[in-house]
Amino acid sequence: MPPATNGRVIFNSIPEGFPEPGKSVVYNTSETIDLEGAPLNGGFLVKTLELSIDPYMRGRMRAADIESYVDAFSLGKPLSGYGVGVVLRSENPGVKNGDHVYGFIEHVQYQILKDLSAVSVVQNPHKLPWSTFVGALGMPGQTAYMAWKEFSQAKKGETVFVSTGAGPVGSFVIQLAKLQGLKVISSAGSDEKVQFMKEIGSDVAFNYKTTNTLEVLKKEGGIDIFWDNVGGETLDAALDAAHNYARFIECGMISGYNSGDAQPMKNLFQIVAKSLSINGFIVMRLFQKYLEEFYREVPALVASGKIKHKEQRWVGLENVGEAILAVQKGQNKAKAVIHVADE
Amino acid sequence: MPPATNGRVIFNSIPEGFPEPGKSVVYNTSETIDLEGAPLNGGFLVKTLELSIDPYMRGRMRAADIESYVDAFSLGKPLSGYGVGVVLRSENPGVKNGDHVYGFIEHVQYQILKDLSAVSVVQNPHKLPWSTFVGALGMPGQTAYMAWKEFSQAKKGETVFVSTGAGPVGSFVIQLAKLQGLKVISSAGSDEKVQFMKEIGSDVAFNYKTTNTLEVLKKEGGIDIFWDNVGGETLDAALDAAHNYARFIECGMISGYNSGDAQPMKNLFQIVAKSLSINGFIVMRLFQKYLEEFYREVPALVASGKIKHKEQRWVGLENVGEAILAVQKGQNKAKAVIHVADE
Repeated sequence: MPPATNGRVIFNSIPEGFPEPGKSVVYNTSETIDLEGAPLNGGFLVKTLELSIDPYMRGRMRAADIESYVDAFSLGKPLSGYGVGVVLRSENPGVKNGDHVYGFIEHVQYQILKDLSAVSVVQNPHKLPWSTFVGALGMPGQTAYMAWKEFSQAKKGETVFVSTGAGPVGSFVIQLAKLQGLKVISSAGSDEKVQFMKEIGSDVAFNYKTTNTLEVLKKEGGIDIFWDNVGGETLDAALDAAHNYARFIECGMISGYNSGDAQPMKNLFQIVAKSLSINGFIVMRLFQKYLEEFYREVPALVASGKIKHKEQRWVGLENVGEAILAVQKGQNKAKAVIHVADE
Repeated sequence: MPPATNGRVIFNSIPEGFPEPGKSVVYNTSETIDLEGAPLNGGFLVKTLELSIDPYMRGRMRAADIESYVDAFSLGKPLSGYGVGVVLRSENPGVKNGDHVYGFIEHVQYQILKDLSAVSVVQNPHKLPWSTFVGALGMPGQTAYMAWKEFSQAKKGETVFVSTGAGPVGSFVIQLAKLQGLKVISSAGSDEKVQFMKEIGSDVAFNYKTTNTLEVLKKEGGIDIFWDNVGGETLDAALDAAHNYARFIECGMISGYNSGDAQPMKNLFQIVAKSLSINGFIVMRLFQKYLEEFYREVPALVASGKIKHKEQRWVGLENVGEAILAVQKGQNKAKAVIHVADE
């Protein structure tokens, strides 16, 4: 068998604003791999099936000497991120041919992994599509589930406001909140997303581009919990509309990722005045406490339809750049997934 | 005995920027009171001895229809705030002549209180000056002690940054942190204040007007706890210099009290990236949990000199406006107290 082309998505240049496909990120087919003969050196060969495209990836497109909570992408090297692959060959006793692995992998068609430090073997007893493992069962679902458990202090009858409520994290949070008997207000950037938020149970859903967030929050009587994926103006409105003792779960601040400008904030003093508690988190840091519970409970909730989810798939690694841009601009319609290959 | 003049400090107009004495606040001597004959109707007559001047008072100088965590002052009526007085006459069985009361009272020489809802009788077994009861033993000391206990999660060897560290709250926090074995960085706005912070044990003390806050925090290796009295740029620097999992105790944000402008914030995303926890509070809401413990522990610490404190006193109600302005501008040298009268 001749060597196979090994398509790769390369980090090509640091973007100043939004990352342009073909400029910040380029697809490259110059490398090949001998699928049957390439030496494994005790590792295993993985064929990529599904890759997750997430908002936080913008933060990795920076100069390598700027520190942050995740490493910068390396210029000239493939991107990496959450993904699912199938094992083609293995010399590692913990992994066998045909196993599926989930974790942090490179944006390439084929890769040889040394060990199980970045991925783990996943079971799929409910026969869910493998893309579910980068969505509701992957980082977005884990983010929603674990941070909600850790920080929400949710009580039946309270009101939560979920920003980017049609996204993979936000939509999961909406459904968790409804399962616990809360009133849910949610926002997103298109009428189609608003429709989806209503379908999954949001009591009040609105398009923040056509409706004033603060007016909605005040009209609905204020909020006890804010799930923040946005920051900026939306955070400022939530501070204004918060009840005393409200909890803010800071999951992301996408509004600032592409501008680099300072955000003008009018209502930070409400943190003092209303005794607010505001918690940021990185989901990896909650794994030890909640990962086992997550895998025990959530796959069944997803399989039974109690937690609904939705994805938008791009087919082929050559579309990674487009998908990243769509996610940064909020133009994707649901959880963004790259379907790289069938099994 | 002829009626006595009853001097009052009146809220005269809502300030736009800094509150000008004689304009926002005026001293008025038009009223009199018959100290021996004025009917008490079951209440008690209090002679004001000491009044506390605090940063939060600026927030009460607003239109009455704007909601906040403390009531607005009423135009044409006396200011109110924390103070200590001595009881001259009483028809209330809970209070007798010569008792001292501490609590929320009007900025007047004499007042008749109906009951003990706003003040309580205080004991002074260590014979501390009565002004101590509006400082280290009053709201500032309670604020420092209770919020530190509730939110700092302080561990020996950690580093705390205390803004306005020469103030009554900040200086108390510095000393609590040193008693627990932390490294303390503190800032204030004059060299005299820097000197005081060093005297009470701050390891690194600097004048934020002549030294760059962010540079100090980075040079010292970052911070685990930030005691914030300031907000704005200082908060933004602390976000930048925070370690992962740092705790921010939001006690006040004086930098925004007099401008009303939005604060440009560059580093709010660090809340997410560093898993920060940020807690605002109002000290009254912590009373139930900590007030008894406070009065059991702190008077002895103050009497023995383990907790040092310092005050700047103005003599006479006619100087309330000056003292308020000095506190808002950071020109006071220590805890601002109005000595209204001797016993």
